[in-house]
Amino acid sequence: MKATVYTGNKTFSVLEKEVESPKTGEVRIKVAYVGVCGTDVHIYHGMMDQRVNIPETIGHEMSGVIDAVGEGVSGFSVGDKVVVRPLDDRLVKPSDKGFNHICEDLKFIGIDSPGAMQEYWNVPAFTLHKLNENTDLKLAALIEPLSVATHDVRLSGLTKDETAVVLGGGPIGLLVALVAKETGAQVIVSEVNEKRIAKAQSMGIEAVNPTKTDLVTYVREKTEGRLADVVFEVAGVQPALDIMTEIAGIRGRIVMVAIHGQPKPVNLFKFFWKELKLIGARVYEKEDYEKSIALISANELPFEDMITDVQPLSDIQQVFERIDQNPDGMKVLMDCSL
Amino acid sequence: MKATVYTGNKTFSVLEKEVESPKTGEVRIKVAYVGVCGTDVHIYHGMMDQRVNIPETIGHEMSGVIDAVGEGVSGFSVGDKVVVRPLDDRLVKPSDKGFNHICEDLKFIGIDSPGAMQEYWNVPAFTLHKLNENTDLKLAALIEPLSVATHDVRLSGLTKDETAVVLGGGPIGLLVALVAKETGAQVIVSEVNEKRIAKAQSMGIEAVNPTKTDLVTYVREKTEGRLADVVFEVAGVQPALDIMTEIAGIRGRIVMVAIHGQPKPVNLFKFFWKELKLIGARVYEKEDYEKSIALISANELPFEDMITDVQPLSDIQQVFERIDQNPDGMKVLMDCSL
Repeated sequence: MKATVYTGNKTFSVLEKEVESPKTGEVRIKVAYVGVCGTDVHIYHGMMDQRVNIPETIGHEMSGVIDAVGEGVSGFSVGDKVVVRPLDDRLVKPSDKGFNHICEDLKFIGIDSPGAMQEYWNVPAFTLHKLNENTDLKLAALIEPLSVATHDVRLSGLTKDETAVVLGGGPIGLLVALVAKETGAQVIVSEVNEKRIAKAQSMGIEAVNPTKTDLVTYVREKTEGRLADVVFEVAGVQPALDIMTEIAGIRGRIVMVAIHGQPKPVNLFKFFWKELKLIGARVYEKEDYEKSIALISANELPFEDMITDVQPLSDIQQVFERIDQNPDGMKVLMDCSL
Repeated sequence: MKATVYTGNKTFSVLEKEVESPKTGEVRIKVAYVGVCGTDVHIYHGMMDQRVNIPETIGHEMSGVIDAVGEGVSGFSVGDKVVVRPLDDRLVKPSDKGFNHICEDLKFIGIDSPGAMQEYWNVPAFTLHKLNENTDLKLAALIEPLSVATHDVRLSGLTKDETAVVLGGGPIGLLVALVAKETGAQVIVSEVNEKRIAKAQSMGIEAVNPTKTDLVTYVREKTEGRLADVVFEVAGVQPALDIMTEIAGIRGRIVMVAIHGQPKPVNLFKFFWKELKLIGARVYEKEDYEKSIALISANELPFEDMITDVQPLSDIQQVFERIDQNPDGMKVLMDCSL
């Protein structure tokens, strides 16, 4: 079988490997598609070399079909279409208070252990979610990032009479916008890249450029002075942190989706004055996957527009190089049969 | 009657004034006691001269007895013991979403309009809360700051099986600690001033000095690794902001009580990683006053220990000068009959 490994220094190798039998409690998946996540690009850039066990197969946004079932696995059969929720929470402790998805000793499959960028992938059965037979496996590769969005929107408590502003119109930002719109809420994306703005608009999402339009005035006018009920901070840059506390109205909720590696200045006075809430949100829980699977199965949202490229897995090196050169793209999938 | 006015430049004057009749919708209160709030000291320091209409009578932590009732006021009679909830929300708008206590055009009585540091005070009847006949009027002057604490604890959602850490052991910090303890939760105060630590301990509150004890280790040991379920940031200093995200456990809630005038560095990564919540909390709502009145009426908590000095209102200038020189004191009341 074909497998890829990240070998450090912005380099992937494509290897020929033996197909392995699934161990007790595991299944073997014939991987259909793997999406490239921002975290994968981060790994490619060498930013996570201390965490990744080089040489390592990475990748965690995937879809596939069960190819073999190990001992002790029930409820899954060869031929089932599945996705993996790549959270290994087997080291959970009482002090994690039942929040297994962010438990202190969580292992993220595809970062801390081998991932999906290979032809066959053996995973613990507890990570699996079964799909309907007629699910499109390309769209199904979006279920993992979509679950980040369903988690974010669920934690925000957004309701249909509210207005949400999404700061950042990359892949996660647009998925958050789609899920937020699906609740019936008014949704505005703020994005500085004109091609991403056009992309959002082509998907029916209202998008504005905050370097050209005064975002506070815009949101105030769109909400009859209420300002945003919910802000999703997905941009990860200081101007987003500066404006998030301005565009949030009284008792507004700000969901922190972006990863800010260093402490950053935040206007805490506005948190006090308007009784704002900041809600940290990381990965997803089982129910977020179920919601995402239902959305992908229904296929009523413009998910296909999110996939801007599909390339053979064997071209992985070029795929990552091209992503680096193109800040306009959305989601790139790799076809693991090629 | 005797009235005091802040005239700017760290100066108060004591005046002799005519007693005024209450207007329609107002009552006249014979003020019993007025507490000195940190905000009053802030005004004294000239930090709010742009907001205060100098010369102005300030003060908003008070107790008193109704002395005259204006036209159109029902439910209140001469002789009723009362406290004032000093929030004038008459300019509330639909965009305030029903959060009248923090409405955009809120006027704070005692800052934006004349306050309680005088012998008689005319106020709109909608600001009044009636007390039981047997309520101690000295303790009743604590109801306003106590309501900040009951509001903070209510917004935190603290429950009896949880652990709360209060950063800052000044008057509001200790009131928060008392209210938090009253829920049945484990409560730890972090304070750097040894006299305040001793004060807290004398009131039965666990208190540690974070410059002498490693607070993260301490809280971890006290919680079997869970860390704090709730953190109240009442200190208003950068070291408190630095440690609040360390001592909060998974899905911990951090209540922002302190006023940070400038944007400050916050570890947003920890918000993401542990799915922390930051909850801004300002003043109080009607139900917080009702809770505080019930606590003061019951008088089962060591509220008397909070009052470290009672002075005649006519000595207001010396009172403020002494507060400035003594960082160890808790609540100073002024007797408005003297």
